[in-house]
Amino acid sequence: MIKAGIIGATGYAGAELVRILMNHRETEIVWYGSHSHIDRKYAEVYGNMFRIVENVCRDDNLSELAQQADVIFTATPQGFLAGMLTEEILEKTKIVDLSADYRIKDVSVYEKWYGIEHKSPQFIGEAVYGLCEINREKITERTRLVANPGCYTTCSILTAYPLVREGLIDTDTLIIDAKSGTSGAGRGAKVQNLFCEVNENIKAYGVAGHRHTPEIEEQLGYAGNCNVTINFTPHLVPMNRGILVTEYAKLNKKADGTLPSYEEIKAVYDRYYDTEKFIRVLDKGICPETRWVEGSNYVDIGFVIDERTGRIIMMGALDNLVKGAAGQAVQNMNLLFGLKESEGLELVPCFP
Amino acid sequence: MIKAGIIGATGYAGAELVRILMNHRETEIVWYGSHSHIDRKYAEVYGNMFRIVENVCRDDNLSELAQQADVIFTATPQGFLAGMLTEEILEKTKIVDLSADYRIKDVSVYEKWYGIEHKSPQFIGEAVYGLCEINREKITERTRLVANPGCYTTCSILTAYPLVREGLIDTDTLIIDAKSGTSGAGRGAKVQNLFCEVNENIKAYGVAGHRHTPEIEEQLGYAGNCNVTINFTPHLVPMNRGILVTEYAKLNKKADGTLPSYEEIKAVYDRYYDTEKFIRVLDKGICPETRWVEGSNYVDIGFVIDERTGRIIMMGALDNLVKGAAGQAVQNMNLLFGLKESEGLELVPCFP
Amino acid sequence: MIKAGIIGATGYAGAELVRILMNHRETEIVWYGSHSHIDRKYAEVYGNMFRIVENVCRDDNLSELAQQADVIFTATPQGFLAGMLTEEILEKTKIVDLSADYRIKDVSVYEKWYGIEHKSPQFIGEAVYGLCEINREKITERTRLVANPGCYTTCSILTAYPLVREGLIDTDTLIIDAKSGTSGAGRGAKVQNLFCEVNENIKAYGVAGHRHTPEIEEQLGYAGNCNVTINFTPHLVPMNRGILVTEYAKLNKKADGTLPSYEEIKAVYDRYYDTEKFIRVLDKGICPETRWVEGSNYVDIGFVIDERTGRIIMMGALDNLVKGAAGQAVQNMNLLFGLKESEGLELVPCFP
Amino acid sequence: MIKAGIIGATGYAGAELVRILMNHRETEIVWYGSHSHIDRKYAEVYGNMFRIVENVCRDDNLSELAQQADVIFTATPQGFLAGMLTEEILEKTKIVDLSADYRIKDVSVYEKWYGIEHKSPQFIGEAVYGLCEINREKITERTRLVANPGCYTTCSILTAYPLVREGLIDTDTLIIDAKSGTSGAGRGAKVQNLFCEVNENIKAYGVAGHRHTPEIEEQLGYAGNCNVTINFTPHLVPMNRGILVTEYAKLNKKADGTLPSYEEIKAVYDRYYDTEKFIRVLDKGICPETRWVEGSNYVDIGFVIDERTGRIIMMGALDNLVKGAAGQAVQNMNLLFGLKESEGLELVPCFP
Repeated sequence: MIKAGIIGATGYAGAELVRILMNHRETEIVWYGSHSHIDRKYAEVYGNMFRIVENVCRDDNLSELAQQADVIFTATPQGFLAGMLTEEILEKTKIVDLSADYRIKDVSVYEKWYGIEHKSPQFIGEAVYGLCEINREKITERTRLVANPGCYTTCSILTAYPLVREGLIDTDTLIIDAKSGTSGAGRGAKVQNLFCEVNENIKAYGVAGHRHTPEIEEQLGYAGNCNVTINFTPHLVPMNRGILVTEYAKLNKKADGTLPSYEEIKAVYDRYYDTEKFIRVLDKGICPETRWVEGSNYVDIGFVIDERTGRIIMMGALDNLVKGAAGQAVQNMNLLFGLKESEGLELVPCFP
Repeated sequence: MIKAGIIGATGYAGAELVRILMNHRETEIVWYGSHSHIDRKYAEVYGNMFRIVENVCRDDNLSELAQQADVIFTATPQGFLAGMLTEEILEKTKIVDLSADYRIKDVSVYEKWYGIEHKSPQFIGEAVYGLCEINREKITERTRLVANPGCYTTCSILTAYPLVREGLIDTDTLIIDAKSGTSGAGRGAKVQNLFCEVNENIKAYGVAGHRHTPEIEEQLGYAGNCNVTINFTPHLVPMNRGILVTEYAKLNKKADGTLPSYEEIKAVYDRYYDTEKFIRVLDKGICPETRWVEGSNYVDIGFVIDERTGRIIMMGALDNLVKGAAGQAVQNMNLLFGLKESEGLELVPCFP
Repeated sequence: MIKAGIIGATGYAGAELVRILMNHRETEIVWYGSHSHIDRKYAEVYGNMFRIVENVCRDDNLSELAQQADVIFTATPQGFLAGMLTEEILEKTKIVDLSADYRIKDVSVYEKWYGIEHKSPQFIGEAVYGLCEINREKITERTRLVANPGCYTTCSILTAYPLVREGLIDTDTLIIDAKSGTSGAGRGAKVQNLFCEVNENIKAYGVAGHRHTPEIEEQLGYAGNCNVTINFTPHLVPMNRGILVTEYAKLNKKADGTLPSYEEIKAVYDRYYDTEKFIRVLDKGICPETRWVEGSNYVDIGFVIDERTGRIIMMGALDNLVKGAAGQAVQNMNLLFGLKESEGLELVPCFP
Repeated sequence: MIKAGIIGATGYAGAELVRILMNHRETEIVWYGSHSHIDRKYAEVYGNMFRIVENVCRDDNLSELAQQADVIFTATPQGFLAGMLTEEILEKTKIVDLSADYRIKDVSVYEKWYGIEHKSPQFIGEAVYGLCEINREKITERTRLVANPGCYTTCSILTAYPLVREGLIDTDTLIIDAKSGTSGAGRGAKVQNLFCEVNENIKAYGVAGHRHTPEIEEQLGYAGNCNVTINFTPHLVPMNRGILVTEYAKLNKKADGTLPSYEEIKAVYDRYYDTEKFIRVLDKGICPETRWVEGSNYVDIGFVIDERTGRIIMMGALDNLVKGAAGQAVQNMNLLFGLKESEGLELVPCFP
């Protein structure tokens, strides 16, 4: 059995890790780290785990945990892991980091968008960006550090990736309008996330400045082998889980001056994703909906070509706590240990 | 592999059966019956099942299905199964009926509360009331017909059962105030169940006349070996899943004229339920919440004694589509085939 | 114009006072007191008031405010007003207190249930319990201090009042099961009130110990001229506004041993409430729903007699922020100044 | 008093008309037309109107109603009014049509997008497009027929209008991503609008084909004096009321090759809207949220300039049933009869 530790086990992403690992046949959780609930029974903090998890919460001592765990999941605030990580730790254990600390290769971009100094840039080069469907071959039993992608990012990138990589869209025109459930805002006690403030409301936030922007740009830049600069606008939706992205871009015309057809675009998506267990390219005329992926590790993708404007509207949906966080982290762990990639992730979406 | 057929597979309870059986290692679904979607792909009706279920919907031909299936789940309107069931069918297959047709032993009570004639009362005696924790020993490989209990009923009965059976409460004073999510109202297109009608609202309905009343009374009557007549009031809550019951009753005084203590009552609950996998009696001071059982087969139970009034307030929570419908149906199926009772039901509650 | 000041103007009840008073033709707000937002524009805290309210928030200096205001609304935590109130203040201004400080006549009951010492019990006797429909004649231009009733309390009392007063029910059997929207929990930043914690959930809380219990008991005791001891159980519902109470009691039999009929009970309700503008006794067969009173000062009341158990089920619905708080406070203010009682309160319920 | 009739009074927009007109001092409703509820008390269909509206529902006889009413509101399906309207009717009464029948000047565009033949194109030229803030001077006591704009349309146009009219943005790059509450889908009994289908979900619909597209294009074309072709994508959000639009466009550079500054753009918005009672251009850094306009006739507008991409992100929020339907209809009526434009519309937004 793989011994797993979680730092930040009482946040929403941490709790989802616990839920998923409960049904993972090759893993046991040996450490429920929670800065704010030390020595309290985990099941008192998350009542769903009553009689399932008997452990008490531990602190966030990464060094001590590294001695006990084969893999550590850090579901912690930005800067936490960067401030704690050492070579000694990485010699003892693997780390899947759910924060942004090692996602962006250019440390100055990280420091600009996150507004904090990066305390351990020496590990950035080693860290693998853990978007499994794209970087699978880099996530191996020799990998020590995985930067697990953000929720908006995973959805945004996977939805556009094949078309960017194949040069089918003009990335200068790419606009991503994203909508997220409220669990993405975390479990901190903030007035703005109270029930009465979120319910019966929709709003944009972080307009032209959300931190997932450079992460999307960097990864799509690798895909297209070009600089990508986008508009990314997240919105808060009164629901617990789910992210939907609606992406707009000009389709590049073919040599004969016409637009590619639906079937041509569909064939490209299918070529990239047909064998991917967790990506479902929907049938013609079907748009993704967050309800159809809830509780699962799926990303659903659909698109419509608008002949009038020459644009394609690409849409993607995922569960922000699963494929957007904990599910993808477990998928990465499976790759890190040479397990079946879908182990513990055969979660059937739960509707209604 | 057990071959299972579902009649009514496109209702909410039927869809939950599909979700659960997808992860059941001993069963395959051979028939997705849906009167209103015949010949349509199941995954077009329930988009969550895209690339998971490839089957198309079939009709509701019980006789034909009985030839192919080892077990049939009927998630159908009241009266459907009673009008179709024959000895020939029961000789070929087992049936777990999620409707009320065979739940009530006194056919006149059924006909009065449901307002329809019972077309096959000859099978009522044979049918076992499938509340597994209470009737487990009657649900065996020899059983042919199981009447799967109602959602309100399961929650109401299990919450009070040990105290009724031990004579600790005065059943004449028993009042059950129940609250349910909206999936309990089914997937029919009715104005009263539109989003805008249910959202931002709570109401009572079926006051003093809800059909689950006689079912609760009959079963608690067996438990207490007495006639039980209760008030049962259901309410509609703006959420998808979950039932919470709040039950009030006078505690019977002990021989010395005092009320039983918290610890004495708790000991009774524990005696009945400590070994039950799917019933969690909560710790002192913790009240059940529907969010802690969502997506799982658990029933959570808690209680408070009010010395001022001499009453006990018992509370129970479950997921109406799982322990209140499909989960319990699978639990019954497991018993019918001598499988591990929890096979396919090791569902960790999903929060948030 | 009556000059009104609000202490606690940035809580939900305070904000609702602002909304209502904006359309009150005889009042202007001269003071938006907010301990936590001093010197900030009110419309920055409540964006709905942008370009409607230009004022900045002030502190909670009751003495200073008393010099400027004809009436002060205190929408403050328990104990605040009791600790600040002086004879000097009451000589200068009238006070409508939305907290519990002067609601309960027996100071020891207050101190027991609220767990704090009462700092100015000398004013308890003078304070009028501001349930307008019952105490209207005591709320006059000579009244200086009104204890505005609680939200659960208003709904609970008005629903049962005529039957208690007429001796039609056995108050020893009275059980009140109440359900509230989340605005009743206030705008404090608490994890338990985050969107993801409240959404898709229902729970009981304060079982056998909620502070509105003695307030209900005292007032119903006055009505029935007897000691009343009840069970009161509040529940939290995932919606912004609204309270629904479901009340159960044994009907007293008539001299001939029979139960009173529906028509007899209805006649009693009508006798008490037919001329009340803000109480609507619904037609036979209609149960109150919170959506039908949202945004208005109405209380809707309905009932069902259950011949089987001899009980009556009474139901009441109101908007906890209007008739349960700010609307009733304005109704009291209107009485205090001899205005038309419904001034500013002709709010048509808003649906959907 | 102006005598008003409503055809379609039991739909959501019709019900909102009733709510608003209850507080309109110059109007009385003389006809509650409802095809599906003829002879039923209006307050039985909308319980909020109990003891407020005593009328029973009437049929949809436009000719008869024209004899009794000074103004008729038609909140009816597309094609209804076009099939009924005659010169005789318009000689007797004014009509404010909430459907799309007379909004689009080019009848072939109407017939293409709506898929129905237009039965009375002779009135299209006469009809005034009732976006009051833009067409105010055309809506006079001589006007007989007003085409009340759509909900998405009102929000989309007003948000971009000043910049389009001043040539500040490149309309070829304009993309409108819109999000709506569910009341916009109407009160028809459809599975897709059931609570459990909408709750906990977000989806796009009508992608590249929604009927409000040509209406937006036509009106923005008039503003910019050019052909406008846009992408418009509506989304369904789990809330009752509210529309938020997020609009993206390239800013045209100034003569010196630089982008206009925030202050320059703000000055343009202010020039157009500062004197508009119902349009609130928000302060820098504030994004519109639907909760801040709920129940009111306001449109809130904000914007952010993204220097990185050279785009402006404009955002607008309104209540789809008020400024997006019934409120604007009343605003039009006020203009038609020379009343104060805001009569009956001084609705303070209701939060929470």
